[in-house]
Amino acid sequence: MLSLIEQPIVILVRPQMAENVGAVARAMLNCGLTQLRLVEPREDWRSDKAIAMASGAVAVLEAAVAYPDLRTAIADLQHVYAATARRRELTKTIFVPRAAAVEVDAHLKSGEACGLLFGPERTGLLNAEVAECTAIIEVPLNPGFASLNLAQAVLLIAYEWFQRKVLPVERQFLTNDSPLATREELANFLDRLELALDECGFLWPPAKRETMLHNIKTQFARNNLTQQEINTLHGMIVTLRHPRARGPRKN
Amino acid sequence: MLSLIEQPIVILVRPQMAENVGAVARAMLNCGLTQLRLVEPREDWRSDKAIAMASGAVAVLEAAVAYPDLRTAIADLQHVYAATARRRELTKTIFVPRAAAVEVDAHLKSGEACGLLFGPERTGLLNAEVAECTAIIEVPLNPGFASLNLAQAVLLIAYEWFQRKVLPVERQFLTNDSPLATREELANFLDRLELALDECGFLWPPAKRETMLHNIKTQFARNNLTQQEINTLHGMIVTLRHPRARGPRKN
Repeated sequence: MLSLIEQPIVILVRPQMAENVGAVARAMLNCGLTQLRLVEPREDWRSDKAIAMASGAVAVLEAAVAYPDLRTAIADLQHVYAATARRRELTKTIFVPRAAAVEVDAHLKSGEACGLLFGPERTGLLNAEVAECTAIIEVPLNPGFASLNLAQAVLLIAYEWFQRKVLPVERQFLTNDSPLATREELANFLDRLELALDECGFLWPPAKRETMLHNIKTQFARNNLTQQEINTLHGMIVTLRHPRARGPRKN
Repeated sequence: MLSLIEQPIVILVRPQMAENVGAVARAMLNCGLTQLRLVEPREDWRSDKAIAMASGAVAVLEAAVAYPDLRTAIADLQHVYAATARRRELTKTIFVPRAAAVEVDAHLKSGEACGLLFGPERTGLLNAEVAECTAIIEVPLNPGFASLNLAQAVLLIAYEWFQRKVLPVERQFLTNDSPLATREELANFLDRLELALDECGFLWPPAKRETMLHNIKTQFARNNLTQQEINTLHGMIVTLRHPRARGPRKN
């Protein structure tokens, strides 16, 4: 588990519904975050409703700490980012979540504690509260329909932070335990295919033979075939050419 | 509003709860997505429960279209990405949402329709369903606590696509003037192949038939085949099964 200084702390200001605190705990833990602070929560965040919505992230709820006011809740932090969808008459930097994640990551690596601040469900943060923060995080969304619920706002910002931590691998090719075929194995298959297609008269007329072959070969050559798949293709060709006298549908 | 070809289509397979369909509609519209398809929905997705959860994204629910099966739902698409948290015994590329967004954006800019496929709430997609898709999307999350609810999974993947909208195209897929095949054209080919393999006794023994079929189908399904290539494959199978009495090397 990440220590306090290795992860940002999520701070909910005056959350109204215990269910929403539970849903926030779940979204946090999805992204490896475990430090939750609550400023003047209205309901009991360890209630059955909250635990049901936390869906297994109960440890986050149980470790959550309540504070009487915002100042106390952020007193030991170096940086606090206010999540808000509304532009304020305040002079501050606005980060998208991805850029905020870069900042937060750099601060944490310098040993500086960071908080992510979220307001009450309906009203959001007060200007006075945003004014106490280092900067603003605004999630770029459909300008005609930008309202997120509290847990979704936490999810997107926490998600970006988690991606920042883990993202080196952006894509990978998954095989079912069979290694990818070598180009030699591919070439052997393509030779066999060419022979079979010649034998059965598919590559016809002769003037088009070469172009047809190139187009057929390129389809297989670009497809990252596994050894198992090459073997299957060999077997398919043999069997299509010479049906076996077995199975339910003989011919 | 974005047209069909300018945005990916969200496809929910056998969604169980109308509320969840409503929450998905909200998450979609947050990210500018409006095209929703439902495969065998269990409940009425225009019910009061669904509308309450959509929280204003009612137009997405009203425009949603239900389909009797997956094949019909994806028939007119060129690319289908399966969102799944579980690794499968299938040979396909796995994208993180950010890399998937790059791919989807490039495909859409080439005029190729893309679908994002999500399974039922508790069970997720079947292997047979994933086998028909182009590739997999897996959201990198806390490995000890990776379960998202349906709307959150849609939100994260749609969010990445929306973020991508402001960035330039990094790669594109080049074809030799033949458009990419639709999933219906692919499905027709896979049906023909299955029939031919059954007829010639390749899918044997019966206990292994289904797994063999999934592995064979996944190889073709992931390969961005053009219409021309599909036609060639049809011709190859027919001719392998029934050699023509022409060409230099008859048999």
